[in-house]
Amino acid sequence: MKPSIPKGTRDFSPAEMAKRNYIFDTIRRVFYTYGFQPIETPAMENLSTLMGKYGEEGDKLLFKVLNSGNFLKALSPLPREGEGFTPLDSYATNFPFPTEGERGGSSLNHLAAQLCEKGLRYDLTVPFARYVVMHRDEITLPFRRFQMQPVWRADRPQRGRYREFYQCDADIVGTDSLLCEVDLVQMIDTVFRALDIRVAIHINNRKILSGIAEVIGQADKLIDITVAIDKLDKIGLENVNAELAEKGLPADAIAKLQPIILLSGTDEEKLATLRSTLASSETGLRGIEETEFILKSIHSLQLQSTIILDLTLARGLNYYTGAIFEVKALDAEMGSISGGGRYDNLTGIFGLPGVSGVGISFGADRIYDVLTQLNLFPSEASEGTRVLFACFGPAEAAWSLPIVSRLRQAGIATELYPDAAKMKKQMSYANARDIPYVVIIGETEMQSGNLTVKDMRSGTQDTLTPDDLLEKLNVSPQHAGGH
Amino acid sequence: MKPSIPKGTRDFSPAEMAKRNYIFDTIRRVFYTYGFQPIETPAMENLSTLMGKYGEEGDKLLFKVLNSGNFLKALSPLPREGEGFTPLDSYATNFPFPTEGERGGSSLNHLAAQLCEKGLRYDLTVPFARYVVMHRDEITLPFRRFQMQPVWRADRPQRGRYREFYQCDADIVGTDSLLCEVDLVQMIDTVFRALDIRVAIHINNRKILSGIAEVIGQADKLIDITVAIDKLDKIGLENVNAELAEKGLPADAIAKLQPIILLSGTDEEKLATLRSTLASSETGLRGIEETEFILKSIHSLQLQSTIILDLTLARGLNYYTGAIFEVKALDAEMGSISGGGRYDNLTGIFGLPGVSGVGISFGADRIYDVLTQLNLFPSEASEGTRVLFACFGPAEAAWSLPIVSRLRQAGIATELYPDAAKMKKQMSYANARDIPYVVIIGETEMQSGNLTVKDMRSGTQDTLTPDDLLEKLNVSPQHAGGH
Repeated sequence: MKPSIPKGTRDFSPAEMAKRNYIFDTIRRVFYTYGFQPIETPAMENLSTLMGKYGEEGDKLLFKVLNSGNFLKALSPLPREGEGFTPLDSYATNFPFPTEGERGGSSLNHLAAQLCEKGLRYDLTVPFARYVVMHRDEITLPFRRFQMQPVWRADRPQRGRYREFYQCDADIVGTDSLLCEVDLVQMIDTVFRALDIRVAIHINNRKILSGIAEVIGQADKLIDITVAIDKLDKIGLENVNAELAEKGLPADAIAKLQPIILLSGTDEEKLATLRSTLASSETGLRGIEETEFILKSIHSLQLQSTIILDLTLARGLNYYTGAIFEVKALDAEMGSISGGGRYDNLTGIFGLPGVSGVGISFGADRIYDVLTQLNLFPSEASEGTRVLFACFGPAEAAWSLPIVSRLRQAGIATELYPDAAKMKKQMSYANARDIPYVVIIGETEMQSGNLTVKDMRSGTQDTLTPDDLLEKLNVSPQHAGGH
Repeated sequence: MKPSIPKGTRDFSPAEMAKRNYIFDTIRRVFYTYGFQPIETPAMENLSTLMGKYGEEGDKLLFKVLNSGNFLKALSPLPREGEGFTPLDSYATNFPFPTEGERGGSSLNHLAAQLCEKGLRYDLTVPFARYVVMHRDEITLPFRRFQMQPVWRADRPQRGRYREFYQCDADIVGTDSLLCEVDLVQMIDTVFRALDIRVAIHINNRKILSGIAEVIGQADKLIDITVAIDKLDKIGLENVNAELAEKGLPADAIAKLQPIILLSGTDEEKLATLRSTLASSETGLRGIEETEFILKSIHSLQLQSTIILDLTLARGLNYYTGAIFEVKALDAEMGSISGGGRYDNLTGIFGLPGVSGVGISFGADRIYDVLTQLNLFPSEASEGTRVLFACFGPAEAAWSLPIVSRLRQAGIATELYPDAAKMKKQMSYANARDIPYVVIIGETEMQSGNLTVKDMRSGTQDTLTPDDLLEKLNVSPQHAGGH
């Protein structure tokens, strides 16, 4: 039997873990610095929590977990030897089909509910909304939470798209202050500065998009318009216009839309043009004001990132109501590596209206790919083993144990090669593991009490006392504890 | 709609996360110090990897994931309005029942396979074995890996038993050196010393148990004997003997077993008695030798934990072949908080024989409960926000932004209260969040450029420059960056 793992899933080796942890640790440290607090939610949520939150397409991409025990009961009694297929009729009892009254919904969903009541989380936003509602009495608003956990999607696996992947989300809920948007943009800048990735932060506002739909008389076509505009980069103006026509926008509305889609100049010039174009739309003007406040406040913070007012940015999502963010790496070919925005009614779906929030999500896998492309991972794996004791035999190993113990007590990652293997094999092991120092113990060392320490990078060898070795490794012997 | 989460699962609040991270961070740091490297495996494994590895009972406790898409196809076509139940027959095609040849296995499993090919991982050991086999060409043996990830079991939820919980495992594979056992016992001691929990480490050896079964002439009853002995603490000697009789052990064998089950004295005395009792069993003598080596080596390391040779320890598991470990807290009523042992053929089930390993698993949830019972969690949540800027209005907030930014650049977790709320509300927020310093900004502060800093613990107030504040927070202003 040759083992494998489900398609779209991955194993992470120690080398990959070191790189991934570098990303997660960097993001987590910045999250803390900005006052965000961690929470975790279960991998399995009730399907009633997840279904209907991600559109019809999303529902299909949910991984559903079979009811434990019940499933087999639901399908029994099974045909026994010689009974043929007649007992199939009994399925009708155990697998009740929807009654007339229930037919309004989906028969398939009804049937699925017989088998499954739980699903794997699809993102971190819906579980967070559920969390806020369930724990409203313990939470002090505004609530700044971060969450770094895997999510699962039954998407068709392809290059760079996985069925299990981590999301790193930070959200502030319970306030509609635009200072939160400023905070998040600044935080994006801090994260990518820490990772040494030059980025452009694209900013848009859903209210501006609504205003545009309003002034061209197509308020009900807002989703179609934003979805089409979102494709400008990919399919070009002509195809965007064709799509708009296909969606039922009259030619004059499409004509009116042209200067807005192709708006150019500085942010100030863009906003000025928009202000006059959207003069008749209260919503549109509010979107412009919000955007001006955010851009002005950011300006006082001297960020390193390029900030771009980008009207083509809609993120194809229905639930943003104000600012929309998206981050692109300047020096690598890659889609957005981070994105988010303001949503005004996150928890309404769970019966708690009026909680506004704004959030940002970092895509760890794409950031990993960018860091790889640009060769930006730090070369030192700080957590790896620093010292290997290589012994000529069991007596030497026994003699080494207390010294190994002392190094570990001083916080130095240390191993003792466990077998009395040839010295060459032990050295190969140190090389494969990238261990910088090998302490060689033979009879001479046991008699003198001194250690032969080989620097694996330079190839040089020294004779050191245990105290000397601790000093060489930057640990003061007094602080290393003795015994 | 009132949201809930599946039974047996949990949300973790920021306060709980801080405590859990204290445990995970401590264990992880020790793992690194002992030269272990992290890997991660996917939450979903193929059912063919998981099934049959945990016994019949374990198979039932696996959470199975519905095949995406296929599941609905498998159940279709569904009855349409007015069609009654006749289309049920078509299930026979879509849900093929086992043919004669396949009947050898379980019809239920066959049927389940139509619906599910994936399951959630049940522990970290089987995925690790699968990992070692799949990645054998990249791995340098001996391989010291650790893994800290959640596992899922469809157990009946009860106090302290969850359906989703973390395991923290460290294993060394590819060597049968007993120095690895010594390493692990020492590591257990280091972990619990770091957590300040006093523990007893119980040690046994499967070969000794085998030897006992052999000398009483009941080699084939080994599992029954170890399972019964394992219950001594819980049900007492009389019931253990009754169980042994029930399992078919003759009275003379049970009689011969008595002195061994009730063995007492020092470890040396116990081993001496065993050596004479098991004189005729090669396996038994090997077990005694191994145990002597481990105990002697540990003795040279002056551990803090109590070490107990405990023949009643069998951990009800079939796959240990040598040393067996179990850890109990001395000062709290709790089952084992850590356990493990030596297994000689971990990867054989996946077609790679001859890989011996030894491992240890830390139970984070039970350790959490022990730390809570004994009030041993450190009081300082080091990662929380340290400074809150409370402003009288939007102008003050705008003025504060660059100073907030500067504190963050110095690595100090800082927040700006985003709304122009009453000062009392902002102070309540700081209290609820346990933030030690509040910087109050009004017109006076904007004019002078000085900050009013309130120490929330002492209640005292100071007027400080931003540089003073950085110094107060133990950051040298020169290193804090400016702008």
